[in-house]
Amino acid sequence: MIIEGEDMANGKQITDIQTQYFHVPLSEQLGDARHGIHSHFELVTVTIVQQNGQQGVGYTYTGGIGGRAICHMIEHDLKPCLLGKEASCIEKLWEDMVWKIHYVGRGGIASFAISAIDIALWDLRGRSFDEPLWKLLGGNASSTKAYAGGIDLNFSEEKLLRNVQGYLDKGFHAVKIKLGQERLAEDIERVAAVRELIGPECVFMVDANMKWTVETAVKAARLMQPYNIYWLEEPTIPDDYDGFRRIGSEGGLPLAAGENFHTVYEFVNMITRGQIDFPQPDASNIGGITGWLKVANLAYAYNLPVCTHGMQELHVSLMAAMPNASYLEVHSFPIDQYTKRPLVIRDGRAIAPDKPGTGVEFDWELLKPYQETF
Amino acid sequence: MIIEGEDMANGKQITDIQTQYFHVPLSEQLGDARHGIHSHFELVTVTIVQQNGQQGVGYTYTGGIGGRAICHMIEHDLKPCLLGKEASCIEKLWEDMVWKIHYVGRGGIASFAISAIDIALWDLRGRSFDEPLWKLLGGNASSTKAYAGGIDLNFSEEKLLRNVQGYLDKGFHAVKIKLGQERLAEDIERVAAVRELIGPECVFMVDANMKWTVETAVKAARLMQPYNIYWLEEPTIPDDYDGFRRIGSEGGLPLAAGENFHTVYEFVNMITRGQIDFPQPDASNIGGITGWLKVANLAYAYNLPVCTHGMQELHVSLMAAMPNASYLEVHSFPIDQYTKRPLVIRDGRAIAPDKPGTGVEFDWELLKPYQETF
Ligand SMILES: [Mg+2]
Ligand SMILES: [Mg+2]
Repeated sequence: MIIEGEDMANGKQITDIQTQYFHVPLSEQLGDARHGIHSHFELVTVTIVQQNGQQGVGYTYTGGIGGRAICHMIEHDLKPCLLGKEASCIEKLWEDMVWKIHYVGRGGIASFAISAIDIALWDLRGRSFDEPLWKLLGGNASSTKAYAGGIDLNFSEEKLLRNVQGYLDKGFHAVKIKLGQERLAEDIERVAAVRELIGPECVFMVDANMKWTVETAVKAARLMQPYNIYWLEEPTIPDDYDGFRRIGSEGGLPLAAGENFHTVYEFVNMITRGQIDFPQPDASNIGGITGWLKVANLAYAYNLPVCTHGMQELHVSLMAAMPNASYLEVHSFPIDQYTKRPLVIRDGRAIAPDKPGTGVEFDWELLKPYQETF
Repeated sequence: MIIEGEDMANGKQITDIQTQYFHVPLSEQLGDARHGIHSHFELVTVTIVQQNGQQGVGYTYTGGIGGRAICHMIEHDLKPCLLGKEASCIEKLWEDMVWKIHYVGRGGIASFAISAIDIALWDLRGRSFDEPLWKLLGGNASSTKAYAGGIDLNFSEEKLLRNVQGYLDKGFHAVKIKLGQERLAEDIERVAAVRELIGPECVFMVDANMKWTVETAVKAARLMQPYNIYWLEEPTIPDDYDGFRRIGSEGGLPLAAGENFHTVYEFVNMITRGQIDFPQPDASNIGGITGWLKVANLAYAYNLPVCTHGMQELHVSLMAAMPNASYLEVHSFPIDQYTKRPLVIRDGRAIAPDKPGTGVEFDWELLKPYQETF
């Protein structure tokens, strides 16, 4: 079978793929209910060069674990199946990558590795067409609603409230806090205190990071009824579709999940068998922009909004593009602080960059101190 | 919280973990419907040393992709969470590993990495107790039924039949071939020819390696009705639980799957929502012996037998141990040729090794030519 274009000399053949690894310290230690304390995040960047010299940059990130495995999968397993191929045929390359590494894939490290490459290919496409991502992907709007997502489980209540006040001061109209204290009563006290601080109008989400059994999650959801919770995120492990359904129907709060789903099939199964009101795909671990779009369109078909997890500097453009966007997460891993355009928030909305491509340009000088061999 | 034993000087603290990578050529190229041509397999070995000097060896393998990522996950992400811990507490260490790498895990590379470590810990335990694995895990029997599993999609029909005859000559009473030719009629011709060769008594399985749509799989299953097929393996992608149910009920053949399930939850979902008559967990990618046992016991609770995929030199002991064992796969990646005890087949049964530990002792001299840095 001849793949059209593959041996055409149109200058779009991939001639080089460069992978870089950065181990970036957080300004303070952040904690959640299941992943323990985060002191660093890992950033893996991929630069794809095509024959005509044009380049695209993609990336993925982790909470401090797995970054080197991602780099080695890109270098040893994915790069050989991409070199010489035409960069424009993104969906074909995506499918090729998925099947090339399927046996060791179907999620996990493979989804992160594919994500970084796929984002680089979309950056290239945007630059080729001289269009910013939010237009290239649909152009629904140039901005999107945003909320501030804290990783604040280990903050004292006083510090938690100071932190939330900081979000309000930055112009956010929506905030999320972490739950999963040893004593459930303490979680509820913190929820009550935050609601008191932010007032009745502010959108308020909570995230249990899979800490609870189904029984505890139902109890917690019922106890939070008085506080007008916009969504309860990851009350239990994402594998338990029946559990989610029960938490939703017995607990009575809308549910969100997605940062731990790394294939589109997991979203299908949660949507059709479990309960999910706010699907939250993350382009850094669902197979890049191509994977994210598959989930966003799946959500659309199921009459659901789409949300995000982390990586706000990129997701802002994806959310702006989509007609069914809900709230963009503005995450506590500040990748955008190492780019030339940290996220812009105006009146509670995040503004998509207008530069051709993803609009995420790393400030390599700022990152240099954190680069390590992999 | 104090973990009992962790600071006791009982000599069982883990003092070193050594990872090695081997890229081993196959004597001939092997092909299936989804993974293309295999020219090599990758072997990743892990040697765990405890304070008293005792060692355990574990391993995992791939079809040629992902091995280096597995090594780096072991070295950078898992080793730091194991050093200094007591090697005996396998279930605790397993749970610790699963959660340590959960965000980049839930299957994929992480499951392979955990597998290699877990197997080394079980090897250590067997050696400590001076018991072979088949006794340590239950002692149901010292042998198990076995079948020869070919990776022969790209063999001509003539060569396929020669190959199958070779299995019969080696004493196998059960054989499996690959399906998924471009023309379904060709698959059916090959099935008919093999059944003709092996006679009506020989157990005969077929494996489509996820090649088909649900519709084609139903059609194929119906066309194979006359040939007394013991199971149809992976007719379509393992994510499609409804599809499996439909193929089973409309096609009328027993179904097998498991080599692409890398968490116990995927087996739960396939068992309860799809259809699976022969679950096939693989200790090299389901989280080692600990993960394999979880699936074997899940199968038991659902009134199902348990099978395996690949790695016969180890799986023989797991299958022998279990009361609900069906057929052991004797796979075309001959890892056992690089051990001091290649698998012993007698009267169609595979005999479990009687040495303390897993009984899988690598012949490092034989492997040395294939070792590479990772
Ligand atoms: Mg979350
Ligand atoms: Mg198979």
